Amino acid sequence: MTPVKDGVHGYIELGSLAEALVDTPAMQRLRYVRQLSTVQLVYPSANHTRFEHSLGVYHLASRATDRLDVADDLAARLRAAALVHDVGHGPFGHQTEAAIERHLGRHHDEIGWLLAETELGGVLEEQGLDPDAVAESVDGRGPLGELVSGALDVDRMDYLVRDAHHTGVPYGTIDHDRLVYALRTVDGELAIADGDVATAESALIARTLMNATVYRHHVSRIAGAMLDRASETLLADGAVAPERFARLTDAELLAALEEYGPTADLAARIRDRDLYKRAVWIDREAVPDDLVGIDYGRTGALEREIAAGAEVEPAAVIVDSPTEPNSPESRARIAADGDLARLEERSSLVAGLDACAREIWRLGVYAPADDLAAVREATESVLGLAADVAP
Amino acid sequence: MTPVKDGVHGYIELGSLAEALVDTPAMQRLRYVRQLSTVQLVYPSANHTRFEHSLGVYHLASRATDRLDVADDLAARLRAAALVHDVGHGPFGHQTEAAIERHLGRHHDEIGWLLAETELGGVLEEQGLDPDAVAESVDGRGPLGELVSGALDVDRMDYLVRDAHHTGVPYGTIDHDRLVYALRTVDGELAIADGDVATAESALIARTLMNATVYRHHVSRIAGAMLDRASETLLADGAVAPERFARLTDAELLAALEEYGPTADLAARIRDRDLYKRAVWIDREAVPDDLVGIDYGRTGALEREIAAGAEVEPAAVIVDSPTEPNSPESRARIAADGDLARLEERSSLVAGLDACAREIWRLGVYAPADDLAAVREATESVLGLAADVAP
Amino acid sequence: MTPVKDGVHGYIELGSLAEALVDTPAMQRLRYVRQLSTVQLVYPSANHTRFEHSLGVYHLASRATDRLDVADDLAARLRAAALVHDVGHGPFGHQTEAAIERHLGRHHDEIGWLLAETELGGVLEEQGLDPDAVAESVDGRGPLGELVSGALDVDRMDYLVRDAHHTGVPYGTIDHDRLVYALRTVDGELAIADGDVATAESALIARTLMNATVYRHHVSRIAGAMLDRASETLLADGAVAPERFARLTDAELLAALEEYGPTADLAARIRDRDLYKRAVWIDREAVPDDLVGIDYGRTGALEREIAAGAEVEPAAVIVDSPTEPNSPESRARIAADGDLARLEERSSLVAGLDACAREIWRLGVYAPADDLAAVREATESVLGLAADVAP
Amino acid sequence: MTPVKDGVHGYIELGSLAEALVDTPAMQRLRYVRQLSTVQLVYPSANHTRFEHSLGVYHLASRATDRLDVADDLAARLRAAALVHDVGHGPFGHQTEAAIERHLGRHHDEIGWLLAETELGGVLEEQGLDPDAVAESVDGRGPLGELVSGALDVDRMDYLVRDAHHTGVPYGTIDHDRLVYALRTVDGELAIADGDVATAESALIARTLMNATVYRHHVSRIAGAMLDRASETLLADGAVAPERFARLTDAELLAALEEYGPTADLAARIRDRDLYKRAVWIDREAVPDDLVGIDYGRTGALEREIAAGAEVEPAAVIVDSPTEPNSPESRARIAADGDLARLEERSSLVAGLDACAREIWRLGVYAPADDLAAVREATESVLGLAADVAP
Repeated sequence: MTPVKDGVHGYIELGSLAEALVDTPAMQRLRYVRQLSTVQLVYPSANHTRFEHSLGVYHLASRATDRLDVADDLAARLRAAALVHDVGHGPFGHQTEAAIERHLGRHHDEIGWLLAETELGGVLEEQGLDPDAVAESVDGRGPLGELVSGALDVDRMDYLVRDAHHTGVPYGTIDHDRLVYALRTVDGELAIADGDVATAESALIARTLMNATVYRHHVSRIAGAMLDRASETLLADGAVAPERFARLTDAELLAALEEYGPTADLAARIRDRDLYKRAVWIDREAVPDDLVGIDYGRTGALEREIAAGAEVEPAAVIVDSPTEPNSPESRARIAADGDLARLEERSSLVAGLDACAREIWRLGVYAPADDLAAVREATESVLGLAADVAP
Repeated sequence: MTPVKDGVHGYIELGSLAEALVDTPAMQRLRYVRQLSTVQLVYPSANHTRFEHSLGVYHLASRATDRLDVADDLAARLRAAALVHDVGHGPFGHQTEAAIERHLGRHHDEIGWLLAETELGGVLEEQGLDPDAVAESVDGRGPLGELVSGALDVDRMDYLVRDAHHTGVPYGTIDHDRLVYALRTVDGELAIADGDVATAESALIARTLMNATVYRHHVSRIAGAMLDRASETLLADGAVAPERFARLTDAELLAALEEYGPTADLAARIRDRDLYKRAVWIDREAVPDDLVGIDYGRTGALEREIAAGAEVEPAAVIVDSPTEPNSPESRARIAADGDLARLEERSSLVAGLDACAREIWRLGVYAPADDLAAVREATESVLGLAADVAP
Repeated sequence: MTPVKDGVHGYIELGSLAEALVDTPAMQRLRYVRQLSTVQLVYPSANHTRFEHSLGVYHLASRATDRLDVADDLAARLRAAALVHDVGHGPFGHQTEAAIERHLGRHHDEIGWLLAETELGGVLEEQGLDPDAVAESVDGRGPLGELVSGALDVDRMDYLVRDAHHTGVPYGTIDHDRLVYALRTVDGELAIADGDVATAESALIARTLMNATVYRHHVSRIAGAMLDRASETLLADGAVAPERFARLTDAELLAALEEYGPTADLAARIRDRDLYKRAVWIDREAVPDDLVGIDYGRTGALEREIAAGAEVEPAAVIVDSPTEPNSPESRARIAADGDLARLEERSSLVAGLDACAREIWRLGVYAPADDLAAVREATESVLGLAADVAP
Repeated sequence: MTPVKDGVHGYIELGSLAEALVDTPAMQRLRYVRQLSTVQLVYPSANHTRFEHSLGVYHLASRATDRLDVADDLAARLRAAALVHDVGHGPFGHQTEAAIERHLGRHHDEIGWLLAETELGGVLEEQGLDPDAVAESVDGRGPLGELVSGALDVDRMDYLVRDAHHTGVPYGTIDHDRLVYALRTVDGELAIADGDVATAESALIARTLMNATVYRHHVSRIAGAMLDRASETLLADGAVAPERFARLTDAELLAALEEYGPTADLAARIRDRDLYKRAVWIDREAVPDDLVGIDYGRTGALEREIAAGAEVEPAAVIVDSPTEPNSPESRARIAADGDLARLEERSSLVAGLDACAREIWRLGVYAPADDLAAVREATESVLGLAADVAP
C-alpha cells in the first residue's frame, strides 16, 4: 500500500492495481486538466485537477466497498472504475464536452475505446480485471455501478467537498463520511438508510447551492461558451483532429487556439481574462419554452442573425441557452422497512430544490464590451424578448 | 484593543466597553452554560459555551456595523447588545426556558431587569450607553435591532458555524463572511443584496439540517424533557426560588436536582446518561392537530392518564409534543431595485424547507427502559394513536 | 459498531466493549472534567472534556493496532486502556493532581484500584479482559503499553490536535495520520520509521509551542495555583474526604470550595475570573537552582515568610515554582536498518527544543491586585532575588 | 472594493489599484505558474498558483499596514509591491531560476525592467505610484520593504499556510493572524513584540518542517533538476530566446521542451511522471565541503565524467548538489524594552533548526531506472564517495 497525501481526505492508500493505473499516461494527463476548468477565473484558488479528484473518488469507493462488504472481485472492479472514471474527459472537462460529442459522437463517460486503445486496458487485464466490465461500471451500469455513477455516487461526494475546499465556498461541505456510512444494499441495489434522509438531502442541497454560486457563475459560463465556439472552429476547420483534440490538456488546447489564426483572439481573451460581457441575461420566466436548451445549429443561426442586426462580426455574439437543470440525486433510493422509495418521495425538499435550480437558469447573450448595447438591442428584436431584466 | 483567540473566528478584538462587560459576573457565568445544553450527550465534543458564542456574536456585530457604516453611538449600542444578548439564559439554555417562564413569567430575551439589577447596567452607563436602549436591541427592537435578533441576525450566523465546528456536523458551515458582506440598509431596514438570495437561503438550509441532525436529536429532546420535569418539581415545591433558579449554571442545577429527593433519580439519570427511551415516536401526519404543541397543563394530565393505564409511577411517563417549527429566516428582506421583498417571495426553497421542518416534527412519549411496552400500549389507548410507527 | 461523531476525527466507531465501558458512571463523569481545566479562562473556546478526548485516544489506538497488526487479544486490551486511561483524573485534571497525591498517595495513572472498585472492572471481565492487565497498559507497561503511555503515545497525538482545534492555536496540528502510519514494532518495541524523523520531531515541536502559548500560560498557572491552595485547605481541614475529592467533577469541586468558608473567596475569584496577578515572574537564569521545583512544605514556608514581610494574609501569597520541563518524546525510538535509536540521537532539534522549554520556565509569585507592590518587595527580600524582570 | 473569495483567507478586498494591476497580462500569467512547480508530482493536490498566492500576500500586506498605521502613500506602495512581487518568476518558479539567471543575468526579484516594459508600470503611474519605488519594495529595500521581502515577510506568511492547505501537510499552519498582530515598528524597522518570540519561532519551524517534507522532497528535486537541464539545453541551443523563456507559463515551457528534439525525452518523462531515480543520495556528513553547492560548470564536468565512467549518455546523469540552507527568519528583529535583538539571540531553537536544516541536505545523483547501478558505481569512483548510504 502506498499512501498518498491529499488535501481533502488525508492519506489515501493505493493498492498495487491503483498504483499501476496511476502510472499510465492517460491518468497522468489528468494532472493537467483542471476539475473546474474556467471557474478559476472567478475563484482564483480553484486550480485543483481531475487527477487528485480521481484519487479522492477511488478513496471513497474503497471505503464504501469495505463498508458494504462487497466481494473482492467486484470491489476491485468498482475501485478501478472509480479511479479511471474521468480519463475520457477532454481539455477543460465539461466545457469542451459538447464540441467533442459533435465531432466524435462520444460522451466522456464512454471510455471502452480508451481502455481498449491505451495502456489502461493492459494494466486492468494484468490484474485480472475485464476492461469492458470496468467501462460498464464507469457508465453506472452493472452490479453496484451506481456507486461510481448514479444518484448518490462517490464522484459527487468527492467533488462537492473538494470544490468547497478549493474555492473557499463552504456550501459543498457535505458529510461524506456520513453518506458512506449510510449506504446499504437492498436486493443488490444501492440505497440510503431511512434515518439518513437528511444526509441525502444535504448532498442535493450542496449541489444546488454550488450551482448557484460556483458551477453556473456567469463569468465561468461566458469563458466556457467562448471556449466552445473556438473549439468548434478548430475542429470544423480541421485544424486539430477530433481524436487528438479529445486528449489535449487544458494548456495544450489554449496553445492550439492561440496558434490558429481564426481562434487566436478568443484564446488570448481567455488567457488574459479579457472576457465577453453579458449583453443579455434573462431568467427562465421571461424566456419562451422553445428558446430553452436550443441545439447548436439553431444557436448558430440566432447568433448570425443577431450579429447582422447589430452590425458586428458573427464571432462577436454568443448565445448561451442551457437545458433545464435536472437533479439525479432526487432519484436516490431510500431503504425503509425492506422497501425502497425514491428520495423525492420521502423528501419535501426535493421539489423546492428543483424550483430553486430552475430559478438560477439564465439565457445569456455575450459580446465584447464595446458591442454590448448594439447586441442587446439586436437580441431584443431577433428573439422578441424584453431585455429590461438584463444585468 | 485586547485580542482574544477564538476557535471559530480567530482573533476577536475587544474594545474597552466589551472588556468591562466581559469582566462582570453575569457574563462570566456564561462560561458555565453550554451552548447546546444536552446535545453533548449525543455529540460528545459539543461542549462550547454561551460565553464564547457571545464573543463570536459581538465579533460579527462589529464587522457588520463597520460594513454598514453605522454611526458610532448606535454601533456601540448594537455591539454591547450582541455581547450581552444571552445573559438572560437560565441553566441549560432553552431546555429550562419553559419552566422559567412558567414560574417567573419572563423570557430570556427580556433582560431589562438584569441590566437594572446587576453590574451590567452600571458598566453600560459608565460608557455612556442607555441600558434600556441596549435591552431593546437585544429584543430585536429599535434601530437595526434586527441585526441582534431578527430574520438574519448575527446570533444565528455565529451559532450555526460554531455548532458545526464543535459537533463535527458540517451542515452548519454557512458563509458568514459572505452574509456580513451582503448586508444592506434600505430606509433604515436591514436587507440582503439581491444577488445574494442563495447566501440567505443557505442560512435557512443550514438551520433546517442542523435541526434534523443536531438540535432536535431525540436523545437531546429526551434529556431536555427530563430536565424540564425535574425543574418543574424543584420550582413547584419551592426547593429553589425561581429568581435563583434562573441564575444557576448547568452544573449548579444538576447539583440542586441531585440533592433534592424527588428529583434525585432524574438528575442521576441525566448525569450518567441513563436516559429514558422512546416508547412512542410518531410523525406529524399520524398526529391529530389538537395534540400538536399542547400546553403544560394538558401534557401533565395526559402523562398521569397514561401512567395510570400503564400502571407505572407518574414520573415514569413524559409526553413531548413541541409546537410546529417556524422559520424566521424566511422573512429576511431582500433589496432589489430599491424595493424590499421577503426571502420567501424570492426563494422557491422556503416552502420546501418549511415542509421539511414539518417532516422532522415528532410526538414523543418517553419512559424508563423497563416500562416501554406498557407505556406504549397505554399511550395508544389514551391518545387513540396507532403507534405502529414507533421507533 | 456504533458510530459517534467527533469534532476532530469525524466518525469514531465503538465496538461492544467500548460501548459498555462508555456507559459506566466512571466514564460518563469525564464529560464534566475539562481537558484543559482553567485554560478556558484564557482561551474561551477551550471547553472540550476528557470524555471526548478519551474517545479520540481510543480511535487512534484502534487505528494503530490495525496498522501494526496486533493480535486480537492484545489489541482489545490496548483499546480498552486507551479508552479508560483518564478515569483516574480528579477534578480539573492536572491542577489538583498534586493535592490528590499528597492526600491519597496515588497518581492519576494508577487506576488499578478504580477498576477494582467500580463497574469498569466488571465490564472488562465480562468481555474477557483482565483489569490488571488493562491497568498495566494505562501505566505504559506490558506489551506495547507505550502506545497508551510512552514517548509517542496516542494520548499525546490526540490532545495536541484537539487542543489546537478548540483553542484556535494552530501549533498543535501535528500530522497524527502520518504518525500512526509511521509506527513500527521492532522486537516488540514501538518505533517510528527512519524516514519519519521529521514527523516525530513535529510532535515534540507542537508540544513545545503549545506549552509556551497555551499549557503554561500565566493566567492558567495562576488559576491552577489558586485551585491547589484551596484544595489543600479543603482536604487538610477534612471538609471533603480525599477519596470523594478525587471523584468530583470540575463544577462539584468549585461548589464545594464555595460552600466552605475558608476557601469561598478563592472559589469566587476563580468563578468570576477575578484572579491573583503576578507580583513576580522571573525566568530560569535569574533563579538559583535550589528554588526550582521546591516541595510543598518549603513553598508554604516561603509564602508565610513573604506574607509576613508584606504584612498581608498568608492566603494572599502564592509561590509557584514548577519543576524543570522534560520531554518524553525525545526518547521515542527510531527504527533504522534493524537498529533502534532514540529521537534525541537522530534529531538536532531535540537539544534546541529542550533549551526552548527551559526558556519558558518561570518562577511566579501571585497576589491580589491590591497587594502586588508589597508582595513583590517582600519576595525580593525573602528570596534574595532582583525582581526587576517582573512582568 | 471588489471582494474575491480565497480558499485560505476567505474574502480578499481589492481596491481600485489592485484591480487594475490584477487585470494586466503580467499578473494574469501567474494563473498558469504553479506555486510549488513540480511538488504536485508528490502531493497531487498542490496545484495552487502564484496568482492566488499574490492575492494572499496582498491581503496580509493590507492587514499589516492597517495594523501598523502606515501612512497612506507608503501603504499603497507596499500593497502594490506585495501584489506584484512574483511577476518576475519564470515558468515553474524557482526551478528555472538558475537557468534564467545564467542566460539573462537577472534574479526574479529584480522586476524594475518588467515594470518599465509592461503595462504594470503604466498602471502604477496612473495611480500615482513610482514604479521604481515599488520595485525597490519588492526587493526588500526602502521604508518597510522588509514587510514584502525580509526576515518575516508577508510572502512567507502566506505561502506556508497556503502550501499546508493544498498539500494536506499540516506543519505549515503558522498563526499568521498572530504574526500580523505581533508586528511593530521601532525606529522605522519592522520587529516582533517581545512576548511573541514563540510566534516568530513557529514560522521558522514551519519552514524547516515544510522543507523536510515538501519543498525538498526528492521527487520534486529530481523533476526540478531534469527541468533545469532541459531548460539549459533549450536556452544554450538558442531554441527559445531567454527573454521569451522567462515569460512562459509552466505548460508553455513543457510544450517547448516537448517540441525540441534534444529535450523531448526529458519533457515526456516529466509529463508522464516517469522520472529519473536516485542513483546516489548522500547526507552532508559524508560529503566533502568542496562538493557542496558546486557551480554549474563543475557540475556539468562531473556529470560528463560520471556518464563516461558508467558508459551512458551524458544526459543520463544529473548531479544535484544544493548550497547549504540558510534561514533568513533567524534574523527577524525582536522588540524588547525599546531595544532590538535578533531572533537567533533570543531563541534557543534557532541553532537546533539550523542543524536540522543541515541534516536534511543531500547530495543526489539521478539517472534513468535502467542505469542506476552503473551510475552509482561511477559516482563512487569519480567523487571518491562511499555510496553505502544510498537510498
